Amino acid sequence: MTIDDPEVLAEVTAAFRSYEAALTGNDVETLEGLFNDDPRTLRYGATENLYGMDEIRAFRRGRSPKGLDRTLERTQITAYGRDMAVANTLFRRDGAPGKIGRQSQTWVRFPDGWRVVSAHVSVIDEG
Amino acid sequence: MTIDDPEVLAEVTAAFRSYEAALTGNDVETLEGLFNDDPRTLRYGATENLYGMDEIRAFRRGRSPKGLDRTLERTQITAYGRDMAVANTLFRRDGAPGKIGRQSQTWVRFPDGWRVVSAHVSVIDEG
Repeated sequence: MTIDDPEVLAEVTAAFRSYEAALTGNDVETLEGLFNDDPRTLRYGATENLYGMDEIRAFRRGRSPKGLDRTLERTQITAYGRDMAVANTLFRRDGAPGKIGRQSQTWVRFPDGWRVVSAHVSVIDEG
Repeated sequence: MTIDDPEVLAEVTAAFRSYEAALTGNDVETLEGLFNDDPRTLRYGATENLYGMDEIRAFRRGRSPKGLDRTLERTQITAYGRDMAVANTLFRRDGAPGKIGRQSQTWVRFPDGWRVVSAHVSVIDEG
């Protein structure tokens, strides 16, 4: 299995950046479109555990659009083979000093493009 | 892409259970062996951010073997194709009432077997 094939890595990095722009811009439609629309798609958020696209969708649509801006640190995207990749990043928000966020995503290539099938976001005290 | 091929799902489920047994039994050698030995392997833990197998190994070896027992809830393992899968589960510990843990793993099939390439563990207040 090829790890970090440059073409695959470029595709996933582009998808990851689209997600980040949609998140901080609260572009809910794009955010939803980047998750695989399936009951098996799962997202553990900062304060909520969402099983399936219906729960993820309901959460997104009910979320406050305020205070979403963040800066990323130590972002690491790794592609395993041609059809899957993991993207991990730390993040900070101005409104949450002393806290460090962590975001993990697993991306899979579907016929329509790259989609997140599993995500986990959490915030901890800075060590 | 086949999702949840029964043979693949059975293999990953067996690997997931080995991991859980090793974790609660503090079998550090088995735990380390189930992570892909690579600088790109990553683990966001309950209070620490570990980049690369060297950091993961150092953390495991320095960890207290006490209070590791836990019960799993809503475990969901999904296999995408033949070579990758995501495993997500909630967990509770007797010593942490009112708290719910979340563990996400991405598993990849290597020539030597299934290995975790990315993991994220966090604990939040029960909603």
